[in-house]
Amino acid sequence: MNIFCDLDLSPAAKTLLEAGVAPHQVIYPAIRAGSVLAQAGFDPAVQAAEVAFGQPAVASVLAAGQLRWLQVASAGYTRFDTPDFRAAAARTGLQVTNSSTVYAGPCAEQVLAFMLAQARLLPAALRTQCGSGSPEWNALRSGCTMMGGQNVLLLGYGAIGIRLVELLRPFGLSMVAYRRRSRGDETVPVVTQAGLPTALAQADAVVNLLPDNPDSRHFFAAERFAQMKLGAVFYNIGRGTTVDQGVLFDALQSGRLAAAWLDVTDPEPLPPEHPLLRAPNCHITPHIAGGHYQEAESLVGHFLKNFERYQAGASLRDRVV
Amino acid sequence: MNIFCDLDLSPAAKTLLEAGVAPHQVIYPAIRAGSVLAQAGFDPAVQAAEVAFGQPAVASVLAAGQLRWLQVASAGYTRFDTPDFRAAAARTGLQVTNSSTVYAGPCAEQVLAFMLAQARLLPAALRTQCGSGSPEWNALRSGCTMMGGQNVLLLGYGAIGIRLVELLRPFGLSMVAYRRRSRGDETVPVVTQAGLPTALAQADAVVNLLPDNPDSRHFFAAERFAQMKLGAVFYNIGRGTTVDQGVLFDALQSGRLAAAWLDVTDPEPLPPEHPLLRAPNCHITPHIAGGHYQEAESLVGHFLKNFERYQAGASLRDRVV
Repeated sequence: MNIFCDLDLSPAAKTLLEAGVAPHQVIYPAIRAGSVLAQAGFDPAVQAAEVAFGQPAVASVLAAGQLRWLQVASAGYTRFDTPDFRAAAARTGLQVTNSSTVYAGPCAEQVLAFMLAQARLLPAALRTQCGSGSPEWNALRSGCTMMGGQNVLLLGYGAIGIRLVELLRPFGLSMVAYRRRSRGDETVPVVTQAGLPTALAQADAVVNLLPDNPDSRHFFAAERFAQMKLGAVFYNIGRGTTVDQGVLFDALQSGRLAAAWLDVTDPEPLPPEHPLLRAPNCHITPHIAGGHYQEAESLVGHFLKNFERYQAGASLRDRVV
Repeated sequence: MNIFCDLDLSPAAKTLLEAGVAPHQVIYPAIRAGSVLAQAGFDPAVQAAEVAFGQPAVASVLAAGQLRWLQVASAGYTRFDTPDFRAAAARTGLQVTNSSTVYAGPCAEQVLAFMLAQARLLPAALRTQCGSGSPEWNALRSGCTMMGGQNVLLLGYGAIGIRLVELLRPFGLSMVAYRRRSRGDETVPVVTQAGLPTALAQADAVVNLLPDNPDSRHFFAAERFAQMKLGAVFYNIGRGTTVDQGVLFDALQSGRLAAAWLDVTDPEPLPPEHPLLRAPNCHITPHIAGGHYQEAESLVGHFLKNFERYQAGASLRDRVV
């Protein structure tokens, strides 16, 4: 069996992958993907593979008649999340999994890092050397907010949301999750479309974990920002395309929102003249939420666990198509 | 009964206090303390009080023959933590409580904010607009560390440590606390003096929660920094006096420590020319760990709960002398 992999793996991760799939062969493209987020161009090498792991282009996958399983090396899988691709995959019996198990922990920790940095006003507090009792010090001290008692609304409840709920549990805050459909197995109360305006109006923290798909584009536009509580904080580690950034900027500038913390924007990075880069209450990191030491090894480890299941004919983890 | 209070209370907090102790009287000094951390000068008004709440000077307290109970409006109570004061209090039957219950939550959240900001490299990540796949982006992404699996050593295990352990629990890390004496009721394994070098050598995160007292001054000096693991991170939200800051600077500059996060320094603020202010891996906030919205109301609420116990002759919470 040929396993196609287009990730730019470290020597250690490459050895781990090749030893893990032996006696099967790993085949590589001529040019590797530049990062786990990058999408490769058309690659005929995929056509010789039964299994693919990485970030192949949709066209490469569709042209690969022998391909039975693709594991995407990210949590996002936007380009495969279309009716056309799903129909094609159903015809050929192709399964698609993603790597959300790998990214749930670091992404949930990134959200909590954002929430606590906001609660403790770290951006301002790290910049100042003000003395005890000064007006600036009094403003910082009394401006800090306790996590306990806050209302948190999660938009999206996949692997990241589940982990985030675990991490938030001891703070004693109130949590609710928005999903298109409740499945009944969630660890927090769920609201669907009908309950969203009320949930937005009550939330002190709105945590956007939505993936990019046709339903989620500009999910946060004028109407939803207008439904939010005055002084709420907006967090986005889903995808930048889910937010109308012009409306977000207005909400930040008017003070309607107290702050925004974004790990994702549209585009990435934002052009240097983008107004969000100059909004003092907008805090942006460059799409690093999933990153962690030995990320490639984690991705390979997750792939190998699924490879074992694939060979045993068992159901695959993180199946998305 | 007269209750002396030298805190600079908001009108709401003042009303809360006065209504809470009625029909007893609250008496105020001519000049209020500038902040909950400030220490007032000698104040003869304390002499008319049975109960004091705030930050009176040691001399005022010692001169107050009718005083039976003092509640200090901070977690720190250094100036009352001396053999002389303890002996005088024992002679007159004076009880001293602090406000550590009020500060446990915000201080524990400050420590976790620091730890997660370090794990997700927020100071660097918030400054850059680097693009996916760039060398800077790769370094950030792979430089992020997961909380899970880390060894955390807490120095001090009072109210803050107990709360911090609760907040850290879901991350799946390994925790150990240093105390002078184990009491057997701790929620994590405890090491005493003998076990400290090994605990320091194993810790990825060293969290200093020690109060300022003669035993803790320069507790972190050359020897203890030398015992730490290469690349460990040092957190201090105890008191600045517990650290030899020159040695800390050297450890940060040599890379022996990966980073330090300090909410307390000695003095506060550091003079503008202090080398720690220019160390890129030293992150300093201006002693705001205890701060939170409606802090004065929290302090008054905590005092009133103890006042009820005082009147009922019950044992007081947060008793320190």
